[in-house]
Amino acid sequence: MQMSARNMLKGKIEGIDKGPVSTRVKIKMDSPGTVTASITTEAAEELGLNKGNEVYAVIKASEVLVAKK
Amino acid sequence: MQMSARNMLKGKIEGIDKGPVSTRVKIKMDSPGTVTASITTEAAEELGLNKGNEVYAVIKASEVLVAKK
Amino acid sequence: MQMSARNMLKGKIEGIDKGPVSTRVKIKMDSPGTVTASITTEAAEELGLNKGNEVYAVIKASEVLVAKK
Amino acid sequence: MQMSARNMLKGKIEGIDKGPVSTRVKIKMDSPGTVTASITTEAAEELGLNKGNEVYAVIKASEVLVAKK
Amino acid sequence: MQMSARNMLKGKIEGIDKGPVSTRVKIKMDSPGTVTASITTEAAEELGLNKGNEVYAVIKASEVLVAKK
Amino acid sequence: MQMSARNMLKGKIEGIDKGPVSTRVKIKMDSPGTVTASITTEAAEELGLNKGNEVYAVIKASEVLVAKK
Repeated sequence: MQMSARNMLKGKIEGIDKGPVSTRVKIKMDSPGTVTASITTEAAEELGLNKGNEVYAVIKASEVLVAKK
Repeated sequence: MQMSARNMLKGKIEGIDKGPVSTRVKIKMDSPGTVTASITTEAAEELGLNKGNEVYAVIKASEVLVAKK
Repeated sequence: MQMSARNMLKGKIEGIDKGPVSTRVKIKMDSPGTVTASITTEAAEELGLNKGNEVYAVIKASEVLVAKK
Repeated sequence: MQMSARNMLKGKIEGIDKGPVSTRVKIKMDSPGTVTASITTEAAEELGLNKGNEVYAVIKASEVLVAKK
Repeated sequence: MQMSARNMLKGKIEGIDKGPVSTRVKIKMDSPGTVTASITTEAAEELGLNKGNEVYAVIKASEVLVAKK
Repeated sequence: MQMSARNMLKGKIEGIDKGPVSTRVKIKMDSPGTVTASITTEAAEELGLNKGNEVYAVIKASEVLVAKK
């Protein structure tokens, strides 16, 4: 399946923090740095997300802000 | 200024494509890979974005989807 | 590939309106009704979107508002 | 009141899962299928959302991704 | 109609900038300050948006970042 | 740091409601009215958000809907 999302960053899950409705997933990128996602706990469970899983962080271009010093 | 956004990825602008209202900014990350942002042309001009500028891609955790093969 | 997005609605493209940076895609759902997406023109071209294509509208649960009369 | 949101899908609430801050609402559409929304618990309470309520799922076009097999 | 969106800010349109697909709407709030919205041109036309119209800027709480100096 | 986000509204925190993963922040604007943000609890803690803090509500233009009576 191809996605219109311009950004698919590959990494490994390094931490999962489940709340009753929302779950925070920390994804360690191949390059230095970590991307944090906040998804429904239901999704985290249906995908069977676990530490060490290879996943993609998928981000639509219209959700990205640009900051400049 | 500190931001609640969990994701701030540093990179350099490698391309800007301005439309009348929306502008697409390609940001080359220090690590391999590129992040694409779609922002208003007004913002691109006020920040004076140009190829080669050091910028940050700022992404709120609730905007990140997770995909797993 | 499995997505954390809770909503994947199947339909057929019934119209595409390309601007220089943004593109509007109208997707006719199997059930009555149409879903409109606004994506980058770059994405529309890379996916080769054309009228009649079977596609999915993918929507993260945190992007859905609820309205009640 | 008219909304700029391009997508207003009518349905009935078939399930509500309240967390302390976030609430997940499952909306059964008139056509087969369900749309999931993640909203604040405060909003769910102010609107008095209950199973069986007729509601609309409101989605801005810029929040919809397109996927193609 | 009641909305789950936590933020509805009332103001008057002080400027509209239509592109082929996206339109930028500047809304002057009752209090000092302006809120900018980027919506589809189609929506701007269907709502018949014009300078001076009273409108609401509607923002879901999960779309708001917090910054602190 | 300059942000591409078109909307930065200054105010004071008047309430914080922390859940295990998500946190709701109520920001009283200088003008009458309050803006609500839903952010990760992790962000709320790293920024040390407390009642009375001066903060900015930062909102990307593409996240703002327009409603008209």
